[in-house]
This record gives sequence, C-alpha cells and structure tokens, in this order.
Amino acid sequence: MTSETEAARREPTDMDPDEFRRYGKEVVERIAAYLERPESWPVLPPVRPGELRAALPAHPPQTGEPMEAILEDFDRLILPHTTHWNHPGFFAYFAISGSAAGVLGEALTAALNVNAMLWRSAPAATELEQVTLDWLRQLLGLPAEMMGTINDTASLSTLHALAAAREMWPELRVRQEGLAGRADVPAMRVYCSEEAHSSVDKAAVTLGLGLAGVRRVPTDAEYRMDVGALARAIAEDRARGVRPLAVVATVGTTSTTSVDPVREIAAVCEREALWLHVDAAYGGAAAVLPELRWALEGVERADSVVVNPHKWLFVPLDCSVLYTRRPEVLRRAFSLTPEYLTTPVGDEALNLMDYGVALGRRFRALKLWFVLRWFGATGLQAQLAEHIRLAQVFRGWVDMSADFERLAPAPFSVVVFRHHPPGVDDEAELDRLNAALLERVNASGEVFLSHTRAKGRYAIRLAVGNIRTRETHVRRAWEILRGAADEVSRSPR
Amino acid sequence: MTSETEAARREPTDMDPDEFRRYGKEVVERIAAYLERPESWPVLPPVRPGELRAALPAHPPQTGEPMEAILEDFDRLILPHTTHWNHPGFFAYFAISGSAAGVLGEALTAALNVNAMLWRSAPAATELEQVTLDWLRQLLGLPAEMMGTINDTASLSTLHALAAAREMWPELRVRQEGLAGRADVPAMRVYCSEEAHSSVDKAAVTLGLGLAGVRRVPTDAEYRMDVGALARAIAEDRARGVRPLAVVATVGTTSTTSVDPVREIAAVCEREALWLHVDAAYGGAAAVLPELRWALEGVERADSVVVNPHKWLFVPLDCSVLYTRRPEVLRRAFSLTPEYLTTPVGDEALNLMDYGVALGRRFRALKLWFVLRWFGATGLQAQLAEHIRLAQVFRGWVDMSADFERLAPAPFSVVVFRHHPPGVDDEAELDRLNAALLERVNASGEVFLSHTRAKGRYAIRLAVGNIRTRETHVRRAWEILRGAADEVSRSPR
Repeated sequence: MTSETEAARREPTDMDPDEFRRYGKEVVERIAAYLERPESWPVLPPVRPGELRAALPAHPPQTGEPMEAILEDFDRLILPHTTHWNHPGFFAYFAISGSAAGVLGEALTAALNVNAMLWRSAPAATELEQVTLDWLRQLLGLPAEMMGTINDTASLSTLHALAAAREMWPELRVRQEGLAGRADVPAMRVYCSEEAHSSVDKAAVTLGLGLAGVRRVPTDAEYRMDVGALARAIAEDRARGVRPLAVVATVGTTSTTSVDPVREIAAVCEREALWLHVDAAYGGAAAVLPELRWALEGVERADSVVVNPHKWLFVPLDCSVLYTRRPEVLRRAFSLTPEYLTTPVGDEALNLMDYGVALGRRFRALKLWFVLRWFGATGLQAQLAEHIRLAQVFRGWVDMSADFERLAPAPFSVVVFRHHPPGVDDEAELDRLNAALLERVNASGEVFLSHTRAKGRYAIRLAVGNIRTRETHVRRAWEILRGAADEVSRSPR
Repeated sequence: MTSETEAARREPTDMDPDEFRRYGKEVVERIAAYLERPESWPVLPPVRPGELRAALPAHPPQTGEPMEAILEDFDRLILPHTTHWNHPGFFAYFAISGSAAGVLGEALTAALNVNAMLWRSAPAATELEQVTLDWLRQLLGLPAEMMGTINDTASLSTLHALAAAREMWPELRVRQEGLAGRADVPAMRVYCSEEAHSSVDKAAVTLGLGLAGVRRVPTDAEYRMDVGALARAIAEDRARGVRPLAVVATVGTTSTTSVDPVREIAAVCEREALWLHVDAAYGGAAAVLPELRWALEGVERADSVVVNPHKWLFVPLDCSVLYTRRPEVLRRAFSLTPEYLTTPVGDEALNLMDYGVALGRRFRALKLWFVLRWFGATGLQAQLAEHIRLAQVFRGWVDMSADFERLAPAPFSVVVFRHHPPGVDDEAELDRLNAALLERVNASGEVFLSHTRAKGRYAIRLAVGNIRTRETHVRRAWEILRGAADEVSRSPR
C-alpha cells in the first residue's frame, strides 16, 4: 500500500533550498542596490491611476512562472509605480524608514511563519514580544506596570484602548449585552482635541459610539487641547445624561505635532473617572532622548498609550505598540477561548490573542528586537536627534524668510509653514497659492511634502523621519520651495 | 553656515549596503538551511513559560550590537523556543506554510516599506492589491462584481463585514449616532452556527452588539447549520422586536471543517434582507480545485466572504482577503478623510484606507503576487489535492481501525477522530483517555496535533496543510497515535 500511495503523490511545488539560496541572494542584492540609491527614482512616480493595473495580466497564470520573470517584473513594473518612502527627499505625512536590521528581522519572521495567538503556538514570539516591549517601555521612561502588546497600526491600538474604556464599567455589561436597544445604557462620549487623529472617529464608529460619540475639544494657539474646555464639555455632557467614557490626548498630532497638556488632562480624567488614552504614535518615540522626555510627561498616569515603532523607530511596517496599565480590562474586553484553542499549559502562560480583536498574530517582535539591538539606545538617540536638528535648521530658514511663515511650533521633526508673499493677505488666495506651490514642488520628483490645515489655513508640512535624509536634502527641499514660490506668485524677490 | 551644520551632524547608524549584502546573505543561508530541515527541531519545543524571557537581558542595550551577535542569539534562543509551523509533522490548528516565494515577497515589502493608505502614497501597492485579488477571485470562481481588500486576519475581515452589515440601513444612522442611549435603535442580532469561529463573537463585542448579539443556530449531525432552525430563530427575534442584521455561514469550520448549506442560507438572507457573510478563511482555498468548487456554491449570492491566503494558499502571515459585492457600504462605514490625507488626485483613485479600520497598510499584495505566479493555478491545485489526498489516506486508516473512530466528515484536509477502545463507553472516560493520548503524542516532538469538542466529545484533529508534509509524516503520526493509544489505554491489541 505504501509505495502505491507514495507513487500517486503529485510533485510538490515549493522552491527547493538551493533555489531559495539563489533567488534569496538576488533579492538581497536587489534590496542592497535599491537602498544604496533610492534617490535614483523620483520620490513620487509620474504615473496615473490605473496605469499599473492596465500593464498587468487580467488573469492569473495557469502554470507556475520562473522567479527570474517575477523579479524582472518587480523591477519593470513595481518600482516605477512606487512612491519611494525610502527616498531621502520623502518629507510627507510622517516620513519613516524601515531600517536594514528590521528588513532582516522581517524576512526571518516570514520564514518562521508562526502564529503567536497562543503561548503554545509560538512561545518565542509571545515572550520576545513581552521582552522587547518592556525594553521599549524603559527607553521611553514609561512606568513598569504598563504591559505592551503589538498591533498592526495605531488605528487598531486606539480601537483596542477605547474598547477597554467601554469595558471599564462592568455594570454596563457592554461585552455581554452590547449597546443597542438598551434603555439602561446612556449615550457615551470620548473626548479629544480638534487636532486629534481621525482614528479616534473610526474607533468610535466601529465600537458603536458613532461619530457623535466623539466630542472634539477646542485647542489653544499652539494646537493643544484646552483643558478648561474639556472640563466644561464633560460637565455639560453629564448634565445632559451623556456618559463620558474616555479622553484621547495626543503627543505629536498628525497635523502639526502639537502636544496636549497630558498632566492636566490626566488630573481631569482622575477626577472624572475616565479612561485616559494617549496617542503618541509619532511623538512618543522622541522620549528616547533625555531632552525630549518631557513629551511623555503625565503619560505615566494614563490608562493606555500607543507608540508606533514603525513610525519613528526604524522598524518596518507594521508595528504599533499599545501599552496599558489595565491589561486585565483589555483582556476582559477581548478574551474568548473556544475549545480548539484551549491548551494544557495553564494560567501561567500568556496568550496574546486574549488582548485584541485579531486571533492570528505575526511574529512582529522579531524585527523590533533586531532594530533595538542594532541601534542600541544611543544609536536611536543619535538618529532622532539628527532628525530634530534637520527640522530645526529648516525651521530657521522659514523663520528668517520674508515670504514664508511658520504656522505652528515645531517641537519634533515636522515643520508646518506656508508661502506668504508680502502684501497678499486674502486667506483664500493664500490657500490657492500654497496648494499650487505644493503641487509644483512635488512634481519635481526630488522631494515629496504633504499638506494640512492649520486653524483653517492651507499649510505645507515638512516631516523629517527618513533614515537617509541628510542636510543636503533638506536644503534642496528649501531651494525647490523657494524656486516654486517665485514661479507661482510671479513676484520678484 | 552649510559646512558648520553639516559638521554637527551625528553619524548615521543604519547598516551600509555592503553590510546589508553580507548579513542579508547570511539570513538567506539561515532560512535555506532551516527550511531544508525544519524537522531537525522538535515541532513543539520542550520549554516552559518564562524560560526565554529569563534568558534575555532585562534591559535594552545601551549601544548598538553587531549583527553577528543578533543572529547568533536568533539561533541560540529563538529557534529552540519556537513551535515549528514549518515542521512537516505540524498537524495542529490549521497547518499552514509560508512558501519560499512568499518569504522573498515579504522581504521586498519590508524593504520598500510603503504605506498603502492612499493611492498616492503607494500606487503600486494599491493597484497590485486589486489585480492579485481579482486573480484570486477568478481562481476561486467568485463573481466579477466582488471587490477584495486585504486585512491582517480573518477576525478583522469578519469585523469589517459585520460593520458593513450594521451600516446597511442608513435609516439607523449608526455611523453618525452609534447604538448607545438611543430609544429608536433596536437590539440587533447576527446568526451563525454553533460551530462558527469565535471571531464572530469578538466582532459582535467590538461592534457594540455584545455576545447576546450573536445567536448560535444548532447544527445537523454533520455540523452544518440547520437552516430551518435559522429561519425560526430569525422569526422569533423579529417577533420580539430584535432586528436581524446578518448571517455568518462557514465553509470549513475550524473545529471539523464542516460546510454550511450556503445556498439555502442565501435564500433566507435574501428573503429577510440580511447581510450574508461567509467565513471561508480556510475552506475557500479548496475552490481552486475544480472538484472542490462545490465548497463555494451559493457564495456568489453572499454580500461578503473572507478567504485567507495565509491559511491554505502558501502566503506567509498575514494576508486575509475580504471580498464584498457591496464595497460602497463598506466604504460608507469606514471612509473618513482628514485634510492631511486629501490628495489632488481625484475620485478615480482608490484609497484603500477608506475600506477599513486601519489607516496604515503594509504592501501585503506583493507576497500574494509572488506566490500566485510561482505556483500558478496548476501548482496550487496540485498542492491542495495532495493535502486532501493525505488527509483521506489518514481517514482511511482511522475508519479501518477497531479502536479509533472518526467523529466528523472530512471534506478537506482535516480529520477529526478519537481513540475509542472497544468496551469503553463512558464519555467522560473517553475524554480523559483522548486528552492523555494527545499529550503523549505531542510530547514526542515528532508531530503536533490539536483537539476540539465534536458534539461535546473530546476529539483529536489532524490537519494537513504544511507544504513539506509527505505521506511518511502522516503515517508516522498514525504510528505514534497507535503506540500512544496502547500505552494510555493499557489494553492489549
């Protein structure tokens, strides 16, 4: 029987190890060459929506193709249609870099391909996640009682934090009975500033609180939450029978990197018994620098905080860390163990699936471990300090210029500014001018900047965060901006 | 000024390209050697919770460490504490394999490190996601109007589907006003079988429907949803003023891989105007085989379906695809565009952030493209057919054995069975016996099987899905099971 059934076995089709050696080396060489000169590509590709799709076959291949052909198509089709986040002239959104050490970690993660849902299904991934997150906690100066878990993105980390906030009051029985059709459950509210990230709204929609479940508190002249207005909003809601649930404070808003007064907000949350979640997805990383430690002041009193190592700590996407002082509440919100996932290992084992929506969990801690060890504390500090220095150099140029103006403080590595030619004071005209300016700048292919609205004004953002960005690139961005400003405003200097 | 500030720049600390070449090749060699003989490791490591943690430093390194040291620690600490999902004797949960082509794709994804939130931020990632998901749709025989998006896990895909179901009735204004504190919104219900995945419950908890928002419908003798019972449950709820929202049907349940009668369920959903979501996370892949196309029969009438290429299509974790015939409803549930993410490219561009909770999105389509091209349709078919053949061989052994019995049909590559020595008929005793048997089998280090409950009975699952599993490994599992059965039941054969 044996040999008969063996003979019936069809040919396995995975690559054999020697093929993997060969193509693996080709991929390594490709990555090395790419990372050596990402600026040989235009940072924004000169392509239109649908072009790549049209260049690809409409149907899947019937038979397997050689890896040479696949890699050739990667070169021929993918790279030219890519926005190059690795380009040193990438200054848009929050500029990021997946460092080389992180790329190596990611390759090993894909090879091990473990699912870290349970300790038993992935002991190393489960424990390394706890160890690396404890290391990162120490680097950021967060309190020892904060437990971390890795999610894909800050959007999910914030969703989890607010789900825990909703679960904080067992008497509401939200986990069991939900929110719908219940006369005994009041409308609920989450507070954040006007400048807070849209992920707060998305989380509220998802959790059944609705967009109306988010109340946006005004900010001061420096885009920081007005704590007096927060307290008044909470009192007003309580008087109306709305139940305040949580406050989301931000350390480094996406628009202008403003820092909410977390300490004062924490005092309000303590008085009002509200969950305090801090969105430090970008700004939190700055706390690895002793001189920027102030950025996380007060966060030790928060119930949860999100920091994204994939944003400004050189870990490849995706790696977002949610720390919480109340892991038992997070677990209460999400723990559900069907029989096929019970294990003979008892309570002493941590099963990370209990702390979030996702059952499947990639071994994301491995790349974080590689990056933290490759750089060390001092390496990360040097890199961040350099990014901040570069942004401050640029800020100086803006401040000294007669026809540019800064629209927000620049506490980290992002500068928010606009072109403002002397004599032009119509805001709509300035908005149009700056939108045209930005389009022209981005068409250069040398730099990519993005925009925002700062107190209603169209504003350009220069975000430094790419590991390959040098002063020459920042200077070049400034030259291009000035040249384009001359052209769009057609005004002699 | 220039040279002065340049001089002040601190040393950048990323790996230089030649170092990356060197270490990259070392990593490739490491992966090749590992994938050449994953069975040189025990599939379940003989370690206890906390051992790895204790072996790692309590504090992060102050200065950067050489990559040699990091890779040595990977060998010394990570591999011995890993449950080896690559081991050909891995038969637990849903056994999976990240194929070598997928590993190469993942490495390139980490190197490009683009965020596919917007078309503009990642044109290639956005369009390749649409192209590869359309290819996969064709391979599975799903209708052309189904649009796919990639999430990390099926848990998130199902959460998104049910969020869309909740959004289907604009008159409820759930997105705007939420569910809490509203007299005009009724309790809502999602239906699934007793055998459906716990992710349905987690999604209901997250969405504010609560565990009570899920009604589990009884199953027939083959673990398939009883459609008559479904219809009665819906009618009963409506009579009580509960609003039925959606039905989740399963193609390949986690416990026994049963297949709900999707066509009949679709008819109920059409009559009742309910969203039909199909969880085909594992079983959907089988439809690449013409002879298994029946598994997705009726799914063309579903509103959404989840299929996980990281489960049984050889794509490394994580890659879960949500297809929907109603992308506009999914978009309505999740689209929120803050100013800093508006782009000058107009409506013709697809911004994938609009279709889910997560703003950040890894370029997951690249590995899917590599895998679909490397294997081609026939390669995937051959691999899946072989897995199914191996499971059927094992099923035959169980069926022929006097002291083992099968507890469920085995339509795909999972066999659910138990040891049942003649004369032992006490169910509690059989449960104890099989739990002891499984522990003994898993202690072998040669194979890893998991368990479930089948109609209350403790059952052992043998899941074939690893790309390196051969008939010899399945036969060895059977030998170990028989040997261990002899020992635990202490009964002469």
